[in-house]
Amino acid sequence: MRITTVGLDADDTLWHNETIFRLTQDRLRALMADIAPPEALNAKLAEVEARNLRLYGYGVKGFTLSMIETAMELTGNAAPGAMIADILAAGREMLNHPVETLPGVDEALAALSRDYRLVLITKGDLLHQEQKLAASGLGELFVGVEIVSEKDASTYRRVFDRYGTGAGEAVMAGNSLRSDILPALEAGAWGAHIPYHITWAHEVADPPTDHPRFAELASIADLPAWVRGLS
Amino acid sequence: MRITTVGLDADDTLWHNETIFRLTQDRLRALMADIAPPEALNAKLAEVEARNLRLYGYGVKGFTLSMIETAMELTGNAAPGAMIADILAAGREMLNHPVETLPGVDEALAALSRDYRLVLITKGDLLHQEQKLAASGLGELFVGVEIVSEKDASTYRRVFDRYGTGAGEAVMAGNSLRSDILPALEAGAWGAHIPYHITWAHEVADPPTDHPRFAELASIADLPAWVRGLS
Repeated sequence: MRITTVGLDADDTLWHNETIFRLTQDRLRALMADIAPPEALNAKLAEVEARNLRLYGYGVKGFTLSMIETAMELTGNAAPGAMIADILAAGREMLNHPVETLPGVDEALAALSRDYRLVLITKGDLLHQEQKLAASGLGELFVGVEIVSEKDASTYRRVFDRYGTGAGEAVMAGNSLRSDILPALEAGAWGAHIPYHITWAHEVADPPTDHPRFAELASIADLPAWVRGLS
Repeated sequence: MRITTVGLDADDTLWHNETIFRLTQDRLRALMADIAPPEALNAKLAEVEARNLRLYGYGVKGFTLSMIETAMELTGNAAPGAMIADILAAGREMLNHPVETLPGVDEALAALSRDYRLVLITKGDLLHQEQKLAASGLGELFVGVEIVSEKDASTYRRVFDRYGTGAGEAVMAGNSLRSDILPALEAGAWGAHIPYHITWAHEVADPPTDHPRFAELASIADLPAWVRGLS
């Protein structure tokens, strides 16, 4: 076995993301506490997000639009202006939020980059992901950055062909079984699942059972040793 | 001289785009006619868009958020709910709008693709641009598609290195002097400006004077002959 390339997811693999969405959702719940009980708000927001996903894709701007739409639907189009202004401000704060890399990320990427080609593969808003990567200080470690609208097996084949030596000699590491691991395994790559403490409902999936190219790691700190062990 | 690669902008070069933004802005003006005179609305929207560009980038989702913010500012946070719901609907309609290729595009791209590598280079929302390309039916003609957050000289160098034989053997064609032509010329490529009948204020720039690698063409139908004439 030879591994030449390591693909890494960004949100909730290299830095906090879902936490920021959850805190914003808490803020929306507080804003609307007099209008909708928390469960009703959560359910409506999830419904609106799912409905809009095809049109908005992933990222903060679509989430902000879905929060506004949720407020309109729960109030019968009578949301107070101050509420809408506050949702807009919450969305801008998410886009301006400082990037906090997760524990062990800097050391793991420094170690991996000495022996492997690193490629960042992420969904989300194009500009926002570029800004987060720049703010993380990790940009120089990657030979390629691919911000994509969907992560399926053909995405991983294309990216590992372009920046590496094909999916068969690549590892994909990330927190989402659904987006990072299952399609990468399907493409022929190895998959290292590194769970984050919370997962967006849309990204939940069952882990593969007894897959020869799959591992679940407790932390990204374990990734360099696992990748080296494949050779 | 050898030309191997032709880069093409998408919005307002291959298909209508600015027209759809203008029609939506007309709709916002009508919605707010009782609150703000047309000039005040145009000025406020331009101000909000310019302020948000760094955070939102280019595309319909950011434009929709800026329309909502404009409505909030012009009403002192007292925009009626129905107005906000209508702006959200207008944004979704923009994302769902059918793609209409401009006259001559299909023939020009078919002719160019026989002799040159075609690369699509565009700004905007990642998912939306991919959807428009798919809807246009032109996707198969391109060897590469690059959706970027900003078009500067380094963007053109990188893209023409990746998909072609460098900027020195490439032509960039598009409707925006500021985004498509001036930075491509700076990168060492040839530039063919094909004006659209309206230009977003943010994209306005002066044409180069007496530049040896620049031409202004009346229509994309003139592009294949111009490119062939360079060799």
